[in-house]
Amino acid sequence: MEYAMPETTVAEASYEPTDRTVPTRSRDRASYDRALVHAILDEAYVCHLGFVRDGAPVVLPTLYGRVGERLYVHGSTGSRPLRMAGEPEPGLAVCLTVTHVDGLVLARSAFHHSINYRSVVVHGTAHQVTDPDEKRTALDALVDHVVPGRSRDSRPANAKELAATAVLRLDLAEVSAKLRTGGPSDDPEDLTLPHWTGVLPLTSAYGTPIPAADLDPAIALPDYLTAL
Amino acid sequence: MEYAMPETTVAEASYEPTDRTVPTRSRDRASYDRALVHAILDEAYVCHLGFVRDGAPVVLPTLYGRVGERLYVHGSTGSRPLRMAGEPEPGLAVCLTVTHVDGLVLARSAFHHSINYRSVVVHGTAHQVTDPDEKRTALDALVDHVVPGRSRDSRPANAKELAATAVLRLDLAEVSAKLRTGGPSDDPEDLTLPHWTGVLPLTSAYGTPIPAADLDPAIALPDYLTAL
Repeated sequence: MEYAMPETTVAEASYEPTDRTVPTRSRDRASYDRALVHAILDEAYVCHLGFVRDGAPVVLPTLYGRVGERLYVHGSTGSRPLRMAGEPEPGLAVCLTVTHVDGLVLARSAFHHSINYRSVVVHGTAHQVTDPDEKRTALDALVDHVVPGRSRDSRPANAKELAATAVLRLDLAEVSAKLRTGGPSDDPEDLTLPHWTGVLPLTSAYGTPIPAADLDPAIALPDYLTAL
Repeated sequence: MEYAMPETTVAEASYEPTDRTVPTRSRDRASYDRALVHAILDEAYVCHLGFVRDGAPVVLPTLYGRVGERLYVHGSTGSRPLRMAGEPEPGLAVCLTVTHVDGLVLARSAFHHSINYRSVVVHGTAHQVTDPDEKRTALDALVDHVVPGRSRDSRPANAKELAATAVLRLDLAEVSAKLRTGGPSDDPEDLTLPHWTGVLPLTSAYGTPIPAADLDPAIALPDYLTAL
């Protein structure tokens, strides 16, 4: 399986819906827009990776990175999903999901309580990355996903670390986003009920960076962190 | 299947580890402490619910509520996982995972980059709730999970809404928490590298409540919201 840098051609603006990516309900909340999917993926830190082990589902939180239309997750070569993914065939059937919670939606009726959210669900088969160049690119993407620009300001993985790390690739092909925005939607007969109704926004915020105890005090906070 | 209120007896302080809840790696990060598991579950808004459909994994974000040692998720009676769970047998094998991201861990080496997190993974079989009292209790818990105290300040579900809503119960039995805290852990030979190293904390914050456009201005923001 030869490594080729993704996105040498212009991609379609939307992913093609499939049976698995068309929801049975709330279809108006589904989107296949590529730019929206990328934005949701790039803003989160962890995904929830689902796979099947001994016939039962397993869902684990894990870091990931995106390079064009490919997602990468990594782990120890001894970890279960990475062992199961083989190298590189037959691959591991996975479902990778990313969710942002943007607000709590308080309706007058208990039934219409909800949350505002943005999620992406990716179905597919994950394969172990065997090409050394693709592996390095993937690991840089994983670090830069945590803090953009960081891979250039840290010691790259050495041969021993590369050998101990397995990387899985999942192509963005069978993909959908789903989102809810806006206020509550109460039934007409409930509009005069005496309950406060609206949205409580939720946001994610950075705290003050905490230098490591053994950091040389002469090393200043880098620009890519002060910019956050 | 008769409905009995949970927690009439004092529970053990820890969940019993099983093959599925003992990680293959980083065992020092695993915990089976019941109070810790409850705290992680109670602080999050969505879980990621995994199940198997046509042999492939599916992971969907969904709201949930906790009543003692039981978790509840809900959905339309027409939604896939809720239909698949039958009523109430044979149930649906699920893995329910909740994750908080607490900080970005920037090591001097790319390899030791990480995140601080707290997660809970629950394995088990979800069953449809058929007892009307348990169903009401579960729906109250779902609303109160979004905003504590809110179920008493909203119109309860009516018969039509109850009939349209399916509720799944998942017992907290096969459960583990996993967490990482603290600073980076670089290798000794990297300690003199010139890269900033430390932790960038991440927190979740509430924004200013946004009243619904049709809210009667005479209705004040309730105490349980100003307290947040």
